[in-house]
Amino acid sequence: MDPQDHQQPELRQVLVLQPPYVFNIHEHLFTDRFHVLKAYDSPLPTRDFLHANAQSVKVVLCSGAGPITADVIRDLLALKLVVTDATGVNHIDMAECGRRGIVVTNAGDVYSDDVADAAIGLLIDVMRRITSGDRFVRGGRWPTSREYPLGAKLEGKRVGIVGLGNIGSRVATRLEAMGCIVSYTSRQKKQSTHFTFYPNILQLAFDSDALVLCCALTSNTRHMINNKVMKALGKKGIIVNVARGALIDEVELVKCLVEGEIGGVGLDVFENEPNAPRELFELDNVVFLPHAAAFTNESFYDVAQVMIANLEAFFTNKPLLTLVNNKF
Amino acid sequence: MDPQDHQQPELRQVLVLQPPYVFNIHEHLFTDRFHVLKAYDSPLPTRDFLHANAQSVKVVLCSGAGPITADVIRDLLALKLVVTDATGVNHIDMAECGRRGIVVTNAGDVYSDDVADAAIGLLIDVMRRITSGDRFVRGGRWPTSREYPLGAKLEGKRVGIVGLGNIGSRVATRLEAMGCIVSYTSRQKKQSTHFTFYPNILQLAFDSDALVLCCALTSNTRHMINNKVMKALGKKGIIVNVARGALIDEVELVKCLVEGEIGGVGLDVFENEPNAPRELFELDNVVFLPHAAAFTNESFYDVAQVMIANLEAFFTNKPLLTLVNNKF
Repeated sequence: MDPQDHQQPELRQVLVLQPPYVFNIHEHLFTDRFHVLKAYDSPLPTRDFLHANAQSVKVVLCSGAGPITADVIRDLLALKLVVTDATGVNHIDMAECGRRGIVVTNAGDVYSDDVADAAIGLLIDVMRRITSGDRFVRGGRWPTSREYPLGAKLEGKRVGIVGLGNIGSRVATRLEAMGCIVSYTSRQKKQSTHFTFYPNILQLAFDSDALVLCCALTSNTRHMINNKVMKALGKKGIIVNVARGALIDEVELVKCLVEGEIGGVGLDVFENEPNAPRELFELDNVVFLPHAAAFTNESFYDVAQVMIANLEAFFTNKPLLTLVNNKF
Repeated sequence: MDPQDHQQPELRQVLVLQPPYVFNIHEHLFTDRFHVLKAYDSPLPTRDFLHANAQSVKVVLCSGAGPITADVIRDLLALKLVVTDATGVNHIDMAECGRRGIVVTNAGDVYSDDVADAAIGLLIDVMRRITSGDRFVRGGRWPTSREYPLGAKLEGKRVGIVGLGNIGSRVATRLEAMGCIVSYTSRQKKQSTHFTFYPNILQLAFDSDALVLCCALTSNTRHMINNKVMKALGKKGIIVNVARGALIDEVELVKCLVEGEIGGVGLDVFENEPNAPRELFELDNVVFLPHAAAFTNESFYDVAQVMIANLEAFFTNKPLLTLVNNKF
């Protein structure tokens, strides 16, 4: 530790409203290096805690579970930097940050491989009925009912990737190794890839056996997977979502699944986390994860390092490592 | 259909002792073309049925669920060909076939992609806790217990493939796409691959984070995954078995899992199917499949075509398509 830390701790103040996931394991990596102000540990109401520190706090540390709203940002008069342990920044009011000139760093590329693996795991799981097969065996049904329903082959299937960024491109690599035919949609055609580009999601869904959602949640992408897209995907079509729940119109999704209008889903994310739609709990063609696609021991350690490196860079006036492009 | 079939149906007789899985869906493809003698549909005891047809039956059709024992083979005096819908032939007494000059055809390469996909699905599932995550959500635990245990990253993990044949090499391709470091053991070093070869399973286990079993079950490979190998793999080590249950000493496997001596398993196959060890039903680091790694709608159609092509070849004195090498 730099001896300066002890002399001028206020220079290395980091405000935390709610403990980010990474604190479950690696809190000490932060408290060893910075003066961590824990609003959630204070007897003061959050608002009072914010006001008490409004003049000094330059940095907020957060995660997807704890939103940084315009109100919070307005309360923190000296705020310069928001450091999140997430990749997507829809939990942070980026417009307000933009207006105030507050910069935001995210997890960068730390989770990309893990999220891509989880996406592939969910896709195989749904198509090959792994989780429902596990229930079949654990439920003791195998010896009495030999006929376990057949799954669907992955090889040769047309998989549409929605958002061919860090995660989507890794999903594509894995799909190609399994013999799938990869297409994608994104804001614009990528020059660096041989995959077929679709300018709109509806046509991609129509031409795909499965969709894997890997894009950011923005006002443009909210509910992009609506009833029309699901109908275009069709009764055997699969959707995997490892991005954000609100990319899908969840009410319509539940309806389509219950009515057999789509073939199955693998969902890591939901519109109203930590609640997943209970109507789907009895369905064998649904696989749930509790927003854990990015969660490995390794990625948690790595993201702590990225966050600390950003904090160190900020406090020593060096360039930030994983600055989020803020277009507002 | 060839008009000759009706004139001399006995020339195209195919004996079936127990209905193979492929009959669930595609029985008519066989009954349309051949004179299928169903021992399981006869009021006669099987032995009597065999004796009644002993002089004429040249072909037996079977699957992994129905063994073709030396006794059956001895009863069928005219037997020339056994056609199985499986890849592995450990359900057929190959020694007796060899002695009698009876040839055996298997599923060839039909299932390889599907089995490789299931192996990868099981590996991701165990390492990333997909099935246990699904139970966590369906069980309603997510809203009350936010802390879902972290999984393990696949990228950079050392995965040892046991048997680098049609399936093993496809598993390797998929693992490489996920950034795993692939090694293998097999009867002999393959010249056509860049993966590191280990001449023995113990050293491979010692140097691996996970093992994926893709080899045939023979007297040499039975119980090759014993207590020593599991201890060498270690407390975080994962085993995926999509080959045959008896490759693993299941009693020792249960013991190692219950005592935490290995990290987790994904099992499609078991020593005493359709029974899986009940001691493991409560463990979250175990994922079960009911011997379904090869089972897709597509592969069932494809294997029916392979079996029919072999039968047609036999009845028209043409070369068989997927002859099993019988070294006895």
